[in-house]
Amino acid sequence: MALIIQKYGGTSVANAERVTEVAKRVLKYKNEGNDVIVVVSAPAGTTDSLIKRAYELSDTPNKRELDMLLTSGEQISIASLAIAIEELGGKAISLNAFQVNFNTTDAHTKAQILNIDTDVIKENLSKGNVVVFAGFQGITKNNEITTLGRGGSDTTAVALGAALSADEVEIYTDVDGVYTADPRIVSNARKLESISYKEMLELAASGAKVLHPRSVEIAAKYGIKIHLRSSFDDSLGTIVESEGEKSMEKAKIIGVTSSKNEGKITLSGLPDKPGIAAKVFSTLAKSKINTDIILQSSSINKELNNISYTVKSDDLLEAVRISEELKKELGAEGVTFEERIAKVSVIGIGLKTHYETTAEIFDTLAENNINIDMISCSEINVSCIIKESDVEKAVRALHSKFLEN
Amino acid sequence: MALIIQKYGGTSVANAERVTEVAKRVLKYKNEGNDVIVVVSAPAGTTDSLIKRAYELSDTPNKRELDMLLTSGEQISIASLAIAIEELGGKAISLNAFQVNFNTTDAHTKAQILNIDTDVIKENLSKGNVVVFAGFQGITKNNEITTLGRGGSDTTAVALGAALSADEVEIYTDVDGVYTADPRIVSNARKLESISYKEMLELAASGAKVLHPRSVEIAAKYGIKIHLRSSFDDSLGTIVESEGEKSMEKAKIIGVTSSKNEGKITLSGLPDKPGIAAKVFSTLAKSKINTDIILQSSSINKELNNISYTVKSDDLLEAVRISEELKKELGAEGVTFEERIAKVSVIGIGLKTHYETTAEIFDTLAENNINIDMISCSEINVSCIIKESDVEKAVRALHSKFLEN
Repeated sequence: MALIIQKYGGTSVANAERVTEVAKRVLKYKNEGNDVIVVVSAPAGTTDSLIKRAYELSDTPNKRELDMLLTSGEQISIASLAIAIEELGGKAISLNAFQVNFNTTDAHTKAQILNIDTDVIKENLSKGNVVVFAGFQGITKNNEITTLGRGGSDTTAVALGAALSADEVEIYTDVDGVYTADPRIVSNARKLESISYKEMLELAASGAKVLHPRSVEIAAKYGIKIHLRSSFDDSLGTIVESEGEKSMEKAKIIGVTSSKNEGKITLSGLPDKPGIAAKVFSTLAKSKINTDIILQSSSINKELNNISYTVKSDDLLEAVRISEELKKELGAEGVTFEERIAKVSVIGIGLKTHYETTAEIFDTLAENNINIDMISCSEINVSCIIKESDVEKAVRALHSKFLEN
Repeated sequence: MALIIQKYGGTSVANAERVTEVAKRVLKYKNEGNDVIVVVSAPAGTTDSLIKRAYELSDTPNKRELDMLLTSGEQISIASLAIAIEELGGKAISLNAFQVNFNTTDAHTKAQILNIDTDVIKENLSKGNVVVFAGFQGITKNNEITTLGRGGSDTTAVALGAALSADEVEIYTDVDGVYTADPRIVSNARKLESISYKEMLELAASGAKVLHPRSVEIAAKYGIKIHLRSSFDDSLGTIVESEGEKSMEKAKIIGVTSSKNEGKITLSGLPDKPGIAAKVFSTLAKSKINTDIILQSSSINKELNNISYTVKSDDLLEAVRISEELKKELGAEGVTFEERIAKVSVIGIGLKTHYETTAEIFDTLAENNINIDMISCSEINVSCIIKESDVEKAVRALHSKFLEN
């Protein structure tokens, strides 16, 4: 008998029909003799409509109250799923964060998990119940309701897995696993049977939307196996675990990802003295603008620097405005920006130490007449900023080069 | 400085505009130097749509889970109102039942209030907060979420008033008080400045939909003054308190109410032996059929009885079906029923002991050619079952006779 944690997103519990489908799947695992804990998100659309409600009332809604408001969504899902499981003859109990002391810090809208009291959950499992737990939410030691912020319900599921030493945490989405590239772009992209935490983190950071990095970090820390799979069929998906695919040492490269809707800004002619880059990026951070790739380059006379950085398209205009202010303040020469750029990334173990592979990446893009604007390398990730119109071509070329014999 | 509890129903918090209106009113009282606790219901329509969701999943949804589902509605309202109050520059904190130990029995969907720990509320009031509390919900000693059932949020408000010895509990609705008759029927119906608990209970039981009897009972027990008033203007409404209007001793009659959509069933020729009536009404109760007026009459040969009773129209067909079964089981002679009947009631202190008044009621109806089918009297209530088409005429005639000089 295993302890399985299953997490279902908002689309899986959007209406009665889908909730009943989830209930059937849950009971299948329960009836095979497993203990099952289910973590659910709010029904699709609910969180958005609650956020809309809050912003109709205030441009700066109180964060404590925002948490109070948003957590009502998951409460709807857990009660609905418990009702559906009981209707099918199973035993289920829904639980909110306060009922199991799922303790977090008091940082409303982005709380960190402190500890989880597993007694209530274990007691309910031992009574034969499926435990249906509200994702995304937490409770402080002062009985205040919090939310975990980005990646919320995935994080809840993996944290429960860690606290209860679950045999597997299954994350159900509308895709059936992690692919070597987006199957909509590369027709013969291959589904990976397994992948390491590190690779998954890089994939997530490079635009693959399968799993939030935060949940992967917790899984890595506690060695929890995550199974990414589809809620539409029973096929095996991709296992995220310590080692990843056995063949990993040979096939260094495991995937190609891409991300559109980015913009690039360049502050040129900045004085070459300490603290300038820090000033630029702390100012952007204060305005909550998330920078992705950053490149600092010296100008020819060595006394002036250029700083280029990429941001999401949504943030581009605001980033340009702030950069114009920085230009005046820091005495820079100019601000230029570019819309409609994109990022293509190759993910694989040891890329940074295998210069020949990095070179092959650039060669492949060059052979396909794709101009590289910026480059960023980490230990297992090479990302190139290119024109948005070149993305599909770049992904196909790189996948063909590195992932199709 | 007074402690005021205000309760707003679902239509008052249906959308952002209305929530902001409520926030303004709350702050007006707060800024006059009062401590204010606000109790809110779920936004109009929310509870119904959640109930619909539950019954799409199951014909017999688990009651614990139904409570978990429904209480999400009030949570939306309290957070929204707190956000709106803060947006207007006030200080507010929303609180769920579990956060203040609003303790109830574990009878899900119809829990009884056991006790309320007032520490958290008092602490928040002393910090200058408006406390926005979720109506309708409770928490058991085992941390289970419950609901109070019928009259939920009114009951919450009055119970808080009792626990905190509030100076006044204000119940805001879309009418501005209790009238001597429905103003839509009787154009010169008069708003009562005050009314006693007993009279209010009779009015509520006779079809006036202003306040649920349960909250009146708690108010009477603890001597809590209830102020029924409109959320659309600032006019004074009707005070429900121990004594009622000072002029009450003279003007014995305080109002005329009516209720349509009733049906009447008669089981005729029942054997005249003990336990027959008990059998009839326990069988109906088991099927959750609520009987209103009951009349047992002997037939001429004194060996057979007739039992007539009235029910809501919605229950009529089921009540007829059950009565047909009872006919066979008890050996009755027949079952007859009548649709489209109505009840008109005259409410006033000491009616039962003032036979002349009761007689005047029957005379007034007779003078207007209104046939009385059944009569029921309590200490302060005379109700007559009449034809539905006679209702408006009856209300106007009785109001004219007893309440217009």
